[in-house]
Amino acid sequence: MPDQPECPLCNSQAETLVWNAGPCRVILVSDADYPGYCRVVWNEHVAEMTDLSAPERAVLLDTVCATEAALRALLQPDKINLASLGNMVPHLHWHIIPRFRDDRHYPQAIWGTPQRDGVHRSGPDPHALAQRIAAALNGAPATSIDNQQQDRRRSPS
Amino acid sequence: MPDQPECPLCNSQAETLVWNAGPCRVILVSDADYPGYCRVVWNEHVAEMTDLSAPERAVLLDTVCATEAALRALLQPDKINLASLGNMVPHLHWHIIPRFRDDRHYPQAIWGTPQRDGVHRSGPDPHALAQRIAAALNGAPATSIDNQQQDRRRSPS
Repeated sequence: MPDQPECPLCNSQAETLVWNAGPCRVILVSDADYPGYCRVVWNEHVAEMTDLSAPERAVLLDTVCATEAALRALLQPDKINLASLGNMVPHLHWHIIPRFRDDRHYPQAIWGTPQRDGVHRSGPDPHALAQRIAAALNGAPATSIDNQQQDRRRSPS
Repeated sequence: MPDQPECPLCNSQAETLVWNAGPCRVILVSDADYPGYCRVVWNEHVAEMTDLSAPERAVLLDTVCATEAALRALLQPDKINLASLGNMVPHLHWHIIPRFRDDRHYPQAIWGTPQRDGVHRSGPDPHALAQRIAAALNGAPATSIDNQQQDRRRSPS
């Protein structure tokens, strides 16, 4: 499906881009309560995992898990939360959220009722995160970015 | 890791088991607000996706996506939500939740603030769901259940 004019993930203006290789990208979310919170975004506008082919799903899962591995190595969280919801923005994206027992919502989901103010921590350096993601993807170089895919995603609809 | 005596997913007593083949099982959750809500549970006690090998992750993702495909075919939801949280029960399991625009929390996550009473619907027949999951897994027969794995999971710790 082509880019959708009204979709904020087709038309992102300001993202902290950590990794962009092939069909998906990793962005670091700015959330003071959740340092290291990342989103893995499928670049094309599709809604559900089962709108992708099996090989496409495998690439996306590999990127989600590489991001999880990188965040575990850099932050040593108590838990990782993964979610693909998309009720508000039905453009396939994954939340990868490092969780700590003293964070704002633990043990609730971050979309639930706050449990406390939450201890604030420093987030990871985006470059260190990118290096860890690359390592987790077995050294797949960032230069493997598919420029055609990139151009298509960024062109006006 | 062996079964954990205190873990409710290592020692499940009452589950509506829909599918059980090899290393993971699909259960139908009893939730009047969310008909068709399923969990895909990795049978061994591990906490995170990146505690699994890449081939194990692929099997689990295939089962999650087969369940998503089955629920989409049977219920035609407006959206599917997928999540692996595990803050309360750190035994790897995935939530597969059919969502409707008039359900109790839409467009919030089901762990968020209720938006309305929510329209109640009938859930899928477990046998029809199992058949659809089998079909989505390319016809892998339900008889491929690994009985050794089953016996191990169900034996006392």
